[in-house]
Amino acid sequence: MRVYLAGPEVFLADRDAIAAAKKAICAEHGMIGVFPTDPAPEAPQADTDWMRIYLGNEAHIHGCDALIANLTPFRGVSADPGTAYELGFMRALGRPVLGYSNVAGNFTMRSLAALRGAVHRRASGAWEDADGMEVEDFGLTDNLMLDGGIAAAGGALVVNPVAEAARWRDLGGFTRCVAHLAGMKK
Amino acid sequence: MRVYLAGPEVFLADRDAIAAAKKAICAEHGMIGVFPTDPAPEAPQADTDWMRIYLGNEAHIHGCDALIANLTPFRGVSADPGTAYELGFMRALGRPVLGYSNVAGNFTMRSLAALRGAVHRRASGAWEDADGMEVEDFGLTDNLMLDGGIAAAGGALVVNPVAEAARWRDLGGFTRCVAHLAGMKK
Repeated sequence: MRVYLAGPEVFLADRDAIAAAKKAICAEHGMIGVFPTDPAPEAPQADTDWMRIYLGNEAHIHGCDALIANLTPFRGVSADPGTAYELGFMRALGRPVLGYSNVAGNFTMRSLAALRGAVHRRASGAWEDADGMEVEDFGLTDNLMLDGGIAAAGGALVVNPVAEAARWRDLGGFTRCVAHLAGMKK
Repeated sequence: MRVYLAGPEVFLADRDAIAAAKKAICAEHGMIGVFPTDPAPEAPQADTDWMRIYLGNEAHIHGCDALIANLTPFRGVSADPGTAYELGFMRALGRPVLGYSNVAGNFTMRSLAALRGAVHRRASGAWEDADGMEVEDFGLTDNLMLDGGIAAAGGALVVNPVAEAARWRDLGGFTRCVAHLAGMKK
């Protein structure tokens, strides 16, 4: 089983070390981890670097049997949008998707904290921000589409809070996802 | 042609009026707009409200022939993560995806502004934030996976800056997407 390793670690200078560590954990369960920056299965035909990266990632996802997403909030209250995109992409292919977050709290709590009190209650009781936008209040890990896709796929969404300085490199939540995926295969 | 109308307008109190306005624009081009809060094609079987919403949206996307995403930055520098998820989902189904943003500037500029100077240059010249995370610097509208998916699908990504107070309701960018989609059908 090939597993696409989605997440914003691609932005770290030591991403190769993290890719290697994730692949080693996959290998312990007889799986092959595929990192976004691995050479693409076929050379993407594109005029720009970013389009080559895009097409390479798309080809990687098509070539994998499952996806594990690092949904740790990235520069805000939600997962990296590229990771959210890839999660939806793989779910649409009907293959298992799983996710983990290394930060405590839920999407509602994080959203209200980020809005710093600039909210009020609608007559319905729902929270609304200064733009008149409702604050999703289902107590989920992230936007309901992300939680929902994982639940619909029978995947796991592991919340594994760690020290802030460790949140981009701790692989405890990832390891639990790999173990869950191994159990799904049976 | 049925078009899924993805975007964070679902969080507005007057979302029904926006849904009606978008559907009217679709109708002018002979298309049927499908809003996330429309009744689901089949009653989703789920124990929770959020899972019913998720499964309803998934069914809507499967039942549509194309998707137009409102990618206007939502409470941060990027599109709403649920919208990003849905964009990836529809792209994986191989159907046309398009998007628009009512805010000027590109992802790099917005990211650097949000980081408020807490960045430095790597030896490579790339910007890196205080967490050691690179700032994507392709001059795109959002994370490269979002721009890439639309480009790969032959869709349009329309940036149509409007006054800040109008950014959740202006439909100029949306209208241009519908016109582009109408041209793709030919």
